[in-house]
Amino acid sequence: MITLASDFGDHYPAAMRGVVHRADTDTDVVDVTHTLPRGDVRAGAFWLAFLLPEFPPAVHCCVVDPGVGTDRAALVVRAGEHALVGPDNGLLLPPARALADEGEVEVFRWRYDDPASATFHGRDVFAPAAVAVDEAGVDGVDGLERAVPAADHDPLTLPAPEIGDGGAAGEVLVVDGFGNCITNVPGTALPAVDTVAVNGQQVPVGRSFAAVEPGERLVTVGSHGNLECDVNDGRGEEAFALAPGDAVRFEW
Amino acid sequence: MITLASDFGDHYPAAMRGVVHRADTDTDVVDVTHTLPRGDVRAGAFWLAFLLPEFPPAVHCCVVDPGVGTDRAALVVRAGEHALVGPDNGLLLPPARALADEGEVEVFRWRYDDPASATFHGRDVFAPAAVAVDEAGVDGVDGLERAVPAADHDPLTLPAPEIGDGGAAGEVLVVDGFGNCITNVPGTALPAVDTVAVNGQQVPVGRSFAAVEPGERLVTVGSHGNLECDVNDGRGEEAFALAPGDAVRFEW
Amino acid sequence: MITLASDFGDHYPAAMRGVVHRADTDTDVVDVTHTLPRGDVRAGAFWLAFLLPEFPPAVHCCVVDPGVGTDRAALVVRAGEHALVGPDNGLLLPPARALADEGEVEVFRWRYDDPASATFHGRDVFAPAAVAVDEAGVDGVDGLERAVPAADHDPLTLPAPEIGDGGAAGEVLVVDGFGNCITNVPGTALPAVDTVAVNGQQVPVGRSFAAVEPGERLVTVGSHGNLECDVNDGRGEEAFALAPGDAVRFEW
Repeated sequence: MITLASDFGDHYPAAMRGVVHRADTDTDVVDVTHTLPRGDVRAGAFWLAFLLPEFPPAVHCCVVDPGVGTDRAALVVRAGEHALVGPDNGLLLPPARALADEGEVEVFRWRYDDPASATFHGRDVFAPAAVAVDEAGVDGVDGLERAVPAADHDPLTLPAPEIGDGGAAGEVLVVDGFGNCITNVPGTALPAVDTVAVNGQQVPVGRSFAAVEPGERLVTVGSHGNLECDVNDGRGEEAFALAPGDAVRFEW
Repeated sequence: MITLASDFGDHYPAAMRGVVHRADTDTDVVDVTHTLPRGDVRAGAFWLAFLLPEFPPAVHCCVVDPGVGTDRAALVVRAGEHALVGPDNGLLLPPARALADEGEVEVFRWRYDDPASATFHGRDVFAPAAVAVDEAGVDGVDGLERAVPAADHDPLTLPAPEIGDGGAAGEVLVVDGFGNCITNVPGTALPAVDTVAVNGQQVPVGRSFAAVEPGERLVTVGSHGNLECDVNDGRGEEAFALAPGDAVRFEW
Repeated sequence: MITLASDFGDHYPAAMRGVVHRADTDTDVVDVTHTLPRGDVRAGAFWLAFLLPEFPPAVHCCVVDPGVGTDRAALVVRAGEHALVGPDNGLLLPPARALADEGEVEVFRWRYDDPASATFHGRDVFAPAAVAVDEAGVDGVDGLERAVPAADHDPLTLPAPEIGDGGAAGEVLVVDGFGNCITNVPGTALPAVDTVAVNGQQVPVGRSFAAVEPGERLVTVGSHGNLECDVNDGRGEEAFALAPGDAVRFEW
């Protein structure tokens, strides 16, 4: 299986689909998402770390690539039975670590010469690389060159929160399509409390949106395991006045 | 075949795709749509009743679920050779009745314990249920419990129009992406007339958009069989000042 | 393989997917894109000419059809090993010529009677036609009638630029989702220069977006081979004040 993910939005993903279907292979081709926040490597890393572990072993072709056409490298990352292909900008390692233990994550450099374009490596570099890795396996691909091991090679991309006895200081990673503000604070840090202060304002803690009336705010542990600032049947990012990158202090 | 439909918009549908592909099965997995109007069970029921009959026999995993995480039940509905899986909130019965005669519609309760999340049953309850039904068939799944038969179990979700000799009183079910205002009045009610009054204003009746000049209003029978208030190459909801739920009186 | 492309946006593409999956065939079904600019035949022709050559031989079902329900014909176009199915409005020939040499492009008229709707020929005419062509091949389909050969049959849809020694006069074909203004001027016309005047304003020429600072304008040769007016990490259509159809004069 080859999966495709990008921030390309309309039209361009079809070129990647065409490239992988054009290869003489029977592999399944499945779209993950092509509306990753545009040019936002960290948001892309979050969503991929959340979504890819749902898939069976596959080659995941992942492209959020504001440095396309520069000398940034292309990577192939082995993550247990999975592999990831994409730009060397921090996008791939959070999902790799979500897919496999640290000891099973290995990073390789994918060499490429003269792609047909300097602006669409999703089509010209990464999709062909994904086909090659799918066909031969990471070990069978010629010319892969071991790169600095994952742990040192790249920042984690996703910032770590500060967690103390009385609360946690984190930040908003992404706002999802429902307006939920997903933070980097793990739900496991939250004790059994009925309310929590979010940047100084007391808000109920609920298991599900319906724990509060429509239009009311709540904090919940989302399906990714992190704390979210939400509104039942409304827009969390408006009610909490939060945006990606904003600091969030939880006190409990 | 398993089909997937939801109001999840970006990203989250990939988790459902992953779950069904992760199952050890060769079944085809096909997206219906993931941009059903958010939280609008009635609009979801309309679109699914319109779209699912185009598909071959399949297990349709359908999620518009504002009550996720509450005690609302999960259902499996047999509809002839098709099956539907989703929340017990009225979403499933209109498409079930569009897929099969009333006598072939049977409703079952799907029992689930402790899903991994209280906010993403698409991933944690309904997609696994769809896999189970696809693999074993409705009759082969353990633990399905006959629920109140379809006709009594649930309101129709979709409101019935009042149809008389001189016209019909209905409402707008949905506004589609083109701006067409799709009503609940069946086209079969419309006699052979050249114009019809829509909330008091005379409008031409046309077989296709091009029956009127660009920018002009018309009433047509849409591909779903219901009366629509449209503009050729324009936005019907603006020209008619109509929104989902608004009353529409047709006089002919 | 059957591919599907349209300007239908939400929901309606599922009906086409259902129709082709309902056919008793094992063929792969792949979406190209369903967000082609609405009713814009020329933009549709551009995107399809760009995207379809990435695919293996297939039957491409392409629908941008503002004249649906009128007497415009339905076409089947052979383009080498590929075939295209869609309305006779200029949409199909630019991609056909991108898929095959002129001598391998043949145009046929697809006869259809009484489709179930006058407003959704994607479902009722073109998807069934694509299934028939996929199953029997262009030569095996009954009732295809040779139409006027491609070269005379239809305008090119895509306007030709005027190219001279000192520059080129063209126009914006489409603005992509990144805000890049894609013109009809081929990149091969551009000599090796560092800057070019765009409607009188000097702008750097770069191989990739990162050739200029974020927020800065540049002209580049896009992955489709044409000149684009772009902004690195920004919106070209705003910075250049350009929209589809606008004239662009490049001077070098």
